[in-house]
Amino acid sequence: MIEHKRLQEQMNEVSKFGALAGGGITRLAFSPEEKAARVYVKSLMQDIGMCIREDAIGNIYGRLDGELPLSAVATGSHIDSVPLGGCYDGTLGVMCSLEAIRSIKESGISHKRPLELIIFSCEESSRFNMATVGSKVIAGKLKTEKIKALRDKNGVSLYDAAKDFGCDVEKLDKAELKKDEFYAYIELHIEQGPVLEATNTPVGIVSGIASPFRYELDIKGRADHSGATPMNMRQDALVCASEIILGIEKIASQKAGKSTVATVGFANAVPGVLNVIPGEVKLGIDIRDIDKESLEHADKLVNELIREVVQKRGLSFTLKELARDFPTVLSKEIAEILANQAKILGVKAITLPSGAGHDAMHMPHLAQYTGMIFVPCKDGISHNVNEKVNMDDVYKAAEVLARTLIELSNKE
Amino acid sequence: MIEHKRLQEQMNEVSKFGALAGGGITRLAFSPEEKAARVYVKSLMQDIGMCIREDAIGNIYGRLDGELPLSAVATGSHIDSVPLGGCYDGTLGVMCSLEAIRSIKESGISHKRPLELIIFSCEESSRFNMATVGSKVIAGKLKTEKIKALRDKNGVSLYDAAKDFGCDVEKLDKAELKKDEFYAYIELHIEQGPVLEATNTPVGIVSGIASPFRYELDIKGRADHSGATPMNMRQDALVCASEIILGIEKIASQKAGKSTVATVGFANAVPGVLNVIPGEVKLGIDIRDIDKESLEHADKLVNELIREVVQKRGLSFTLKELARDFPTVLSKEIAEILANQAKILGVKAITLPSGAGHDAMHMPHLAQYTGMIFVPCKDGISHNVNEKVNMDDVYKAAEVLARTLIELSNKE
Repeated sequence: MIEHKRLQEQMNEVSKFGALAGGGITRLAFSPEEKAARVYVKSLMQDIGMCIREDAIGNIYGRLDGELPLSAVATGSHIDSVPLGGCYDGTLGVMCSLEAIRSIKESGISHKRPLELIIFSCEESSRFNMATVGSKVIAGKLKTEKIKALRDKNGVSLYDAAKDFGCDVEKLDKAELKKDEFYAYIELHIEQGPVLEATNTPVGIVSGIASPFRYELDIKGRADHSGATPMNMRQDALVCASEIILGIEKIASQKAGKSTVATVGFANAVPGVLNVIPGEVKLGIDIRDIDKESLEHADKLVNELIREVVQKRGLSFTLKELARDFPTVLSKEIAEILANQAKILGVKAITLPSGAGHDAMHMPHLAQYTGMIFVPCKDGISHNVNEKVNMDDVYKAAEVLARTLIELSNKE
Repeated sequence: MIEHKRLQEQMNEVSKFGALAGGGITRLAFSPEEKAARVYVKSLMQDIGMCIREDAIGNIYGRLDGELPLSAVATGSHIDSVPLGGCYDGTLGVMCSLEAIRSIKESGISHKRPLELIIFSCEESSRFNMATVGSKVIAGKLKTEKIKALRDKNGVSLYDAAKDFGCDVEKLDKAELKKDEFYAYIELHIEQGPVLEATNTPVGIVSGIASPFRYELDIKGRADHSGATPMNMRQDALVCASEIILGIEKIASQKAGKSTVATVGFANAVPGVLNVIPGEVKLGIDIRDIDKESLEHADKLVNELIREVVQKRGLSFTLKELARDFPTVLSKEIAEILANQAKILGVKAITLPSGAGHDAMHMPHLAQYTGMIFVPCKDGISHNVNEKVNMDDVYKAAEVLARTLIELSNKE
């Protein structure tokens, strides 16, 4: 049903906006590169006869009417990137959604519900330290005050960046959508993890989206001379931190839920030189799960671990909560349709959680059914110029997406 | 014998050169502040009638002749400091040595051997990343070529800095001294560790000076998405590093020698952000002991540990050796004299190793007997504006020094 060559060519074309000499792209939110990519994709949407609308934060909606005046079946993703990013994170979802809707239109297959392509604005957190801005705004989770407060490293506010980009930010309230605005929302995305590739699976059916609990842990010991302080008189913050790091690994691997993951992303020692025992260490801790109970259990164990280890070693700590977002459960109904369509096509599909965040997180309130399809990416690499996909996997996943859109759009 | 008030006043006076508003000093090697301090100390040396000589790297020698034409008994330390340093590291040794020799002269006590005060040049590594420059040069361990190559952060070479300071660096070869140039060398210094304070001991008799084996360990794992990578598919370089850090602590505390210490000073994770599993970590490792065999044993265990842990976790590493200096054993004869003099004075003294490096490290080749006296410093703190001593401890230690100089200078 979908046209492989056209999808490949248009992926190549869109990858030119913000392209880097050595591969990959830099296409930050509200940048000239993103604007050029948007102009290109909107022209393709117009070619299909979509009715296009842009909201106050820059989300683009393109609609093909259905036979009945029902709520739409939507699909999409984002086309902004991290700095020195890959060509597929977000953009692949937009181009596959576009190809799926176009193929449905060209095939003449009837669909009762409207089909809608959404290109979400500012999904990546790189510029304003806030991810999924566009989807948060339509879900009513991000208001004008906060948008004025968020700034990029040059001091430009998200508000001003959107305004300069041509968005009518003064009407931000009107961008909010009502509950069950859509019948369904499905997003196709690269996995950003190694599971599909390792199991040789082209289609991943996402069961839920893990949101992180995040902390900055500041351990205070005493910075003594590394030569002159006997081992039994030390308060070494880095040794204490190491015991906590290993404990966190053990909690996530063995003590918490099946899909719990936990990561310490950095361990910054002060003063950080060879002749001084680290007197202070800051750890960045990230705990995720798609199961709320497992997440809370893991969080409790990590908190207990920190207290125990620090007390045992006679040091002190402060723990700053950076995030406490709960996981999103995705629609079992959509998962069943996806699994069934994959089976019909003879395409291997497995169910897996998403550890990364996506715009789809904010859609369950706005759509009766929300689902996601993952495509494997090489070595699980993303947010990197070396991000790669196998186009044969992509064609299979896009085909499953198209057929699922048809099935959903004919439900009353 | 020594005059407490005079020593206190002159410590106050010399602490004005490079003094900082909030306490402490910045008196870098070859700086105007160090020059002013040298002029002041030389004027005090002249007041006693010392014959003063300066060599090609800026070491200052002040000599009081003895009754016989024998090799001298020397004592001293350095007066340069780290940036934002304390008033006592180095300078206390110079001022106590000066007070001891002056007191001996004033008392009219006979000394067969000459008494010599040495102020070593550029002891701190802060400016040129090379410690104990003056003592290395006279021991023949640092030659012109290297002195031209070492540069400060502004690109000024050690050679040019010394030349601009007024040193006749072209004659560097002539600064080298011959074997057993001195009969003895004794250096008084703050402990820079917590042992004397914790045991309420005013005088530490130093058994040996530990030199570090130092490494930079670069652990390479894989930087994956911290949400999307299951625990069992990770190659987390920071978790691997943590296991090594705890292993090193265990080796130094339990498996190596009694005086072995080992420290990991930093664990720099790349990319070091919350949403990426650390793909690479650099550790700075410092292992010290005053016993050569224990040091080599600890070093072997650390090397084995690194290999085992990295292999077990399926990661890779490179280990760069930064230093491999062997410990200096100090004179048992001087230690006995110091212990005896302390006993006569009723001053508590204990024997302990020096974990920090000192100019005395390079003296065993140049003096038949080399020894060190430690004075406790508050909380073991040094290289810091909060460096502090209890002057009552200092008076006791300086008295022991003076009496030991007399005893040594009357040996034939």
